[in-house]
Amino acid sequence: MKLKIAVLPGDGIGPEITQQSVKVLKAVADRFDHEFQFDDALVGAAAIDLLENPLPEATLDLCHKSDAVLFGAIGHPKYDNNPDAKVRPEQGLLKLRKELGLFANIRPVRTYEKLLDQSPLKRERITGADMVIYRELTGGIYFGEKSTAEDGKSAQDLCFYSEEEIDRIAHLAFKAAQQRRKKLTLVDKANVLETSRLWRKTVKTIAKEYPDVELDFLFVDNAAMQMILNPTQFDVILTENMFGDILSDEASVIGGSIGLLASASVGNKNAMFEPIHGSYPQATGKGIANPVASVLSAAMLLDHFDLVEEANAVRKAVEVSIQLNVCTQDINKENHYTTEKVGDFLEGLIA
Amino acid sequence: MKLKIAVLPGDGIGPEITQQSVKVLKAVADRFDHEFQFDDALVGAAAIDLLENPLPEATLDLCHKSDAVLFGAIGHPKYDNNPDAKVRPEQGLLKLRKELGLFANIRPVRTYEKLLDQSPLKRERITGADMVIYRELTGGIYFGEKSTAEDGKSAQDLCFYSEEEIDRIAHLAFKAAQQRRKKLTLVDKANVLETSRLWRKTVKTIAKEYPDVELDFLFVDNAAMQMILNPTQFDVILTENMFGDILSDEASVIGGSIGLLASASVGNKNAMFEPIHGSYPQATGKGIANPVASVLSAAMLLDHFDLVEEANAVRKAVEVSIQLNVCTQDINKENHYTTEKVGDFLEGLIA
Ligand SMILES: CC(C)[C@H](C(=O)O)[C@@H](O)C(=O)O
Ligand SMILES: CC(C)[C@H](C(=O)O)[C@@H](O)C(=O)O
Repeated sequence: MKLKIAVLPGDGIGPEITQQSVKVLKAVADRFDHEFQFDDALVGAAAIDLLENPLPEATLDLCHKSDAVLFGAIGHPKYDNNPDAKVRPEQGLLKLRKELGLFANIRPVRTYEKLLDQSPLKRERITGADMVIYRELTGGIYFGEKSTAEDGKSAQDLCFYSEEEIDRIAHLAFKAAQQRRKKLTLVDKANVLETSRLWRKTVKTIAKEYPDVELDFLFVDNAAMQMILNPTQFDVILTENMFGDILSDEASVIGGSIGLLASASVGNKNAMFEPIHGSYPQATGKGIANPVASVLSAAMLLDHFDLVEEANAVRKAVEVSIQLNVCTQDINKENHYTTEKVGDFLEGLIA
Repeated sequence: MKLKIAVLPGDGIGPEITQQSVKVLKAVADRFDHEFQFDDALVGAAAIDLLENPLPEATLDLCHKSDAVLFGAIGHPKYDNNPDAKVRPEQGLLKLRKELGLFANIRPVRTYEKLLDQSPLKRERITGADMVIYRELTGGIYFGEKSTAEDGKSAQDLCFYSEEEIDRIAHLAFKAAQQRRKKLTLVDKANVLETSRLWRKTVKTIAKEYPDVELDFLFVDNAAMQMILNPTQFDVILTENMFGDILSDEASVIGGSIGLLASASVGNKNAMFEPIHGSYPQATGKGIANPVASVLSAAMLLDHFDLVEEANAVRKAVEVSIQLNVCTQDINKENHYTTEKVGDFLEGLIA
């Protein structure tokens, strides 16, 4: 297969982890006889510094023309604590999601037997946890109208959802549930929000088309609690943009490191693959960032093009590396490997 | 001291737990020679059933005329899954908060040595965790304009904040930090939301008046992760309404049971005290609900009127009950006591 892959390393540890995924994907191409073309482009703080634009036209163009986007991470502290900054790295990511129509962000959460004791949660609570979060990605309060009053003394953000926006991701989530344990949990705040009530109503209607899937509902506050109390109860979680952001970061503690969690963002035409962790600025350039989340995102990229054997080879390599403790310091406290060494090891296993 | 206390038991387990707190407060009045007058009133689903109004005028009147409100719980499943219900129990609670001007919801989270092993988190992660969450309670997306389109095909909720709304709770939170470990963490999503940037800017300005308090910032997704990874890092958390709702329920897992967590909601004139748990409909009438969250809310009521010795007596009684395992089944799995028996025991310790 021929694939044109846009590589957007972004900020902080983005470049160093993405480099490992590219290495791994190249090894896959070699072994399975594919032709993957990689084109780099700027995004985020890196792009602001050079071009004063967190998502330069050339980058967006490249993404449109590519079959898939491999994304690193975004964000820089110099913008976070400057409420007056007019241009922010995150705008690049948000615009990219919107422009590419990536309405569904898919975040699998699982555990590794070998890492069960790394989790802050007790072994017996998390054994067997295996869920996937379907987070709506191009709507809600992230993209509603926002403004600050002239005098700077008040501000507002609008959360808006249409039936159509809910429909399309709900169908994907129900289909995923059918391939899994056939349970779907809608997380909302229907006792307070009008948009949540629309979610609940719409999803209940769609559920009729998937009679084999059991549907239940949780308020987001309760879900945040249940995620830790009893994570094995979840199969597919469906939720809106902001709740998905919070819950998926929270869920990352289950597996013992956020450095393990991958995601795919899909739309009708495009698809992007990125770790769920951030740009982790304090770690930049130190060789301590875990490349696994990015590498597993690359595996999701392969899945997306039905390269299942290839994706499994990548996941298998990750499992072996964890088994043998060839891991960065978030996981291997005593005898850790650098980001690059982990990447080399994974590459070697595949080649 | 003379205190007029409005008692709003509400729905589900609300009545049975509130009854225990009233018992405890009566014992306090006897022992310390105070005069507490208790007046019951309807709220929530209970009020809808009888008067088609989740917050009847008479109830609101009573609250206005009282020195404090002791609140049980609110919510009933028959409304949750009916997106078309026009009147909902929760509206009663939200209106009450708004009408009484209860802008700050204060939620302390701590652990009990005896219960450390009850937590889903490992002992070493939570030992020493002791934080208090200041949640803004009368603003944000809870109270902004909401609507559903005529055709029912879209909906919106507005998140609005003014500097003034942020100011008044921020001052309370900084003052609390001064009395504690002098650290304040603002949780927001300033990389996406305009309102969060207003929070960050306003809180940074106020911080100058409290030079002895160390201020830091966390994005809400990261905070949801840090809450589990490393809860001892937090002292005072300050946040907006929705984030506070989610984070405080999440934080409840640290102590081992949500049945232990109390809250105070304060404004310029009124004050209300309620457990952070919900109405737990499945448990209603079974005698299994933990009354401790409500009893500790009553202790916060006593604190509020500077009855510190009295509040400490209540907290001490709770500690003794936990020490002796005189606990409901959420905590004492093998040999549990009923809601009422726990109440009797606490009453006995105080009297
Ligand atoms: C960087 C930020 C804008 C982003 C988000 O909130 O969506 C990130 O937290 C994520 O989850 O991908
Ligand atoms: C019942 C509900 C409206 C309420 C809220 O979301 O504020 C509850 O969850 C709480 O935290 O007190």
